[in-house]
Amino acid sequence: MSDSRVMRRGEERWEGVEPRAYKDVPGSHRDVVRHLLMGGELDAPELPFEVRAFQVEPGGFTSRERHAHPHAVVVLSGRGSVELGDGEDRRTAELASLDAVWVAPWEVHRFRADDDEPLTFLCVVPRDRDRPRLVGVGEGKEGA
Amino acid sequence: MSDSRVMRRGEERWEGVEPRAYKDVPGSHRDVVRHLLMGGELDAPELPFEVRAFQVEPGGFTSRERHAHPHAVVVLSGRGSVELGDGEDRRTAELASLDAVWVAPWEVHRFRADDDEPLTFLCVVPRDRDRPRLVGVGEGKEGA
Repeated sequence: MSDSRVMRRGEERWEGVEPRAYKDVPGSHRDVVRHLLMGGELDAPELPFEVRAFQVEPGGFTSRERHAHPHAVVVLSGRGSVELGDGEDRRTAELASLDAVWVAPWEVHRFRADDDEPLTFLCVVPRDRDRPRLVGVGEGKEGA
Repeated sequence: MSDSRVMRRGEERWEGVEPRAYKDVPGSHRDVVRHLLMGGELDAPELPFEVRAFQVEPGGFTSRERHAHPHAVVVLSGRGSVELGDGEDRRTAELASLDAVWVAPWEVHRFRADDDEPLTFLCVVPRDRDRPRLVGVGEGKEGA
């Protein structure tokens, strides 16, 4: 695998880590940038997970989606919320630094930054995973 | 797998997450507490990784060790350092919030909190992994 490395966090970004587009579906999300910190093509194919960091600008949100793989999320800084579930199960939890969220397989979810603060969170996923399916409000069950 | 859940960070700990002993080898480490946030027996056996958080009190340190599996580390709060390598390759990097560290397979490593500040970091590891081998200063190569 690749050599050991330290990725320093600068004022707004990790040094040497190029921000990537979050998703290619316009309109499903707002003001989200993705960073691949560890895993994927950076490290070895035998590493069974990827560690990504997402920065959501104030008022921004990730796409509302569901998929077979789970998410292991830990908030790094800022404030926001996570919306989980669909229909009658739909609920929202406020999030602040160091809060952790386990998003179970197939659970509909969306992360939001507060209107006046950004939200930065880590999201660990299995290396081998399915593609997310976008979900409109109220159609999570039908999208299964 | 288990249902979705939010683990809130309280003043000093995650609510509902019981701190665990770090290691059972006395003298190899100082003032370290371990938290299993996601994976392991908390979630499903098919999840290929575990997300742990380590809290190191001021002046404390983890054991100096090496193993075949890598570590994916992100600092959550506080200040400290990571020592990497052995012999002529031995080097130390200062660490602050949101710095990330990839510890390559078999690299000797130790994390320390500053003398006057705690250090809290996430450490993601593969679920299937070998046991760490403790390393004294200068004996990393011999311990291979």
